[in-house]
Amino acid sequence: MKSRNNKKNRHAIGVDFGGTSVKLGLVNDQGQIKNRLRINTKEAASTEAWLEAVGRGIEQLCPAADRAALNVAGVGVGVPGFVDFDRGFIYDLPNVPGWKGVHLVHLLERHVGMKVCVDNDVNAMALGECTFGAGRTYQHAVFVTLGTGVGGGLLINNQLYRGAFHMAGELGHVSIDWNGIRSPQGRGGLEQYVGNQRLVARIVKELEKGRESLIREKCGGDFSKITMEMCNNSAREGDALAREIYEFMAACLGCAFASVTYLLQPQAFIVGGGVASVGECLFGPLRRELSDRLSPYFAERIEIKMAEMGNDAGLIGSATLALME
Amino acid sequence: MKSRNNKKNRHAIGVDFGGTSVKLGLVNDQGQIKNRLRINTKEAASTEAWLEAVGRGIEQLCPAADRAALNVAGVGVGVPGFVDFDRGFIYDLPNVPGWKGVHLVHLLERHVGMKVCVDNDVNAMALGECTFGAGRTYQHAVFVTLGTGVGGGLLINNQLYRGAFHMAGELGHVSIDWNGIRSPQGRGGLEQYVGNQRLVARIVKELEKGRESLIREKCGGDFSKITMEMCNNSAREGDALAREIYEFMAACLGCAFASVTYLLQPQAFIVGGGVASVGECLFGPLRRELSDRLSPYFAERIEIKMAEMGNDAGLIGSATLALME
Repeated sequence: MKSRNNKKNRHAIGVDFGGTSVKLGLVNDQGQIKNRLRINTKEAASTEAWLEAVGRGIEQLCPAADRAALNVAGVGVGVPGFVDFDRGFIYDLPNVPGWKGVHLVHLLERHVGMKVCVDNDVNAMALGECTFGAGRTYQHAVFVTLGTGVGGGLLINNQLYRGAFHMAGELGHVSIDWNGIRSPQGRGGLEQYVGNQRLVARIVKELEKGRESLIREKCGGDFSKITMEMCNNSAREGDALAREIYEFMAACLGCAFASVTYLLQPQAFIVGGGVASVGECLFGPLRRELSDRLSPYFAERIEIKMAEMGNDAGLIGSATLALME
Repeated sequence: MKSRNNKKNRHAIGVDFGGTSVKLGLVNDQGQIKNRLRINTKEAASTEAWLEAVGRGIEQLCPAADRAALNVAGVGVGVPGFVDFDRGFIYDLPNVPGWKGVHLVHLLERHVGMKVCVDNDVNAMALGECTFGAGRTYQHAVFVTLGTGVGGGLLINNQLYRGAFHMAGELGHVSIDWNGIRSPQGRGGLEQYVGNQRLVARIVKELEKGRESLIREKCGGDFSKITMEMCNNSAREGDALAREIYEFMAACLGCAFASVTYLLQPQAFIVGGGVASVGECLFGPLRRELSDRLSPYFAERIEIKMAEMGNDAGLIGSATLALME
């Protein structure tokens, strides 16, 4: 284990606050989940109800009487939105109603009587992967998650780098085309090209042209049912259209990764999220594209690795926030 | 003065190694040059001759007998090329023959009997500007120099960030177009659009079309004599073509700055180099473009400032390398 987690024999409670469920876990300082439970987000719709449910869950996972023996450092919460990490304040969770301007650290500390810290979920995942997962041997790494959007987290000098105002790491808005697709975040942002819905739209367009593909069978002819999971499976089975989708994705990601490499020169990119599970169909072309877009000095010194922690990255990462304190 | 220069009443010797001249200066811990001299690079063509000339220059600027009284921290050298900062080793200076694979720190320390450190010239300038110049009030800033190429230096947590292998900050190779201009560094790199020669070529193309402009008069009809200084002067006098050139430049820079802001969220960009001296003809459009390419959360929290140290940035910055040690 590296220096950013050098206090031994400790535990922390992770809270991974998602749009559909809140996952809670007791995590040890090896990044192992020792106990876990899940709350339906809809059953904890108000802030009050959420605090009650999460408080009960924490007591169930790790009763107050056991905390001293387990050396529990506190509670780390990862949330899907904008956070002031220093103050523990949630500005807004765009996909969860009722969470604008909530001083969560203050409320939850009062409720559970432990030290609490809050960060956005991608930062939490980045910290988890870079402490216990695929990034554990690096001091400088960029964590990337591919999904509806493209998220990023930066590890610099063994620490999560949050920027001057806690919003750094927005890799999805890095531009790959100064005259490209417009969005509220600017022009040509990476996720306007490789976000899941954008990729599905590319597939639908090709199928509508009459293009043959396994994806057509998998969706039963109903294009509205197409998912990136179908594309993943088709690519693994050698489907030409699905492979092209990942070639396109690799070129877009390769451009953004090259820019990040020239700017920050990390040791590695750690790539996670549902789409990344397709493996070499994406990672092969991505390594080639990145290398083609870098001078040899940079190309020889950068790695791309698949994230290791899968669905538990958010939970373990949230706990890691508290272990780091 | 901020924490990254908290040792008081010290001096350091700066050596700004350029393609045409080597500037030497005795600099105090307020960033003031107390004594200076200049050596013609051609008169110190071999490594041996360079060491001799620089050694003599240092003795002249600051005789060995005076060094204890002046509390001289050492010698900082800024060089135009690739450096391993930790080892003090020069990989290559592309525009100065004979400097491939030189362990300069070792050689110069033996020659002058003082602690020496070496970094590339843009990092040195960035450190100077961020310690004593336009960036002195920031903890997180990006320094940009506009010239033949586009150089960059990153201040993160009050320190120069060099990346995993000392090559970070290459803002000139950040891509603004994934299908853009090819170069040995990739595709669509910023400096392929806004490097001085590229901008001059844009001007020539317009003039060849018959476009009226003050630049035509300033070059006396000989397009091979056009410089960005002529464009600067014409823009200040209201010339439409010159103004368009800066609008184009602002759009390209705005795209790259937006990407950097989403990724790192610095407090400010500090922009220097000859072209930047045109002032508001560039900075006005650049602020507008950057703001248009960012969401309000980011746009409200970023500044663009003109570098303050001009031609002395490299010399003061080189000395600052030694003051930081």
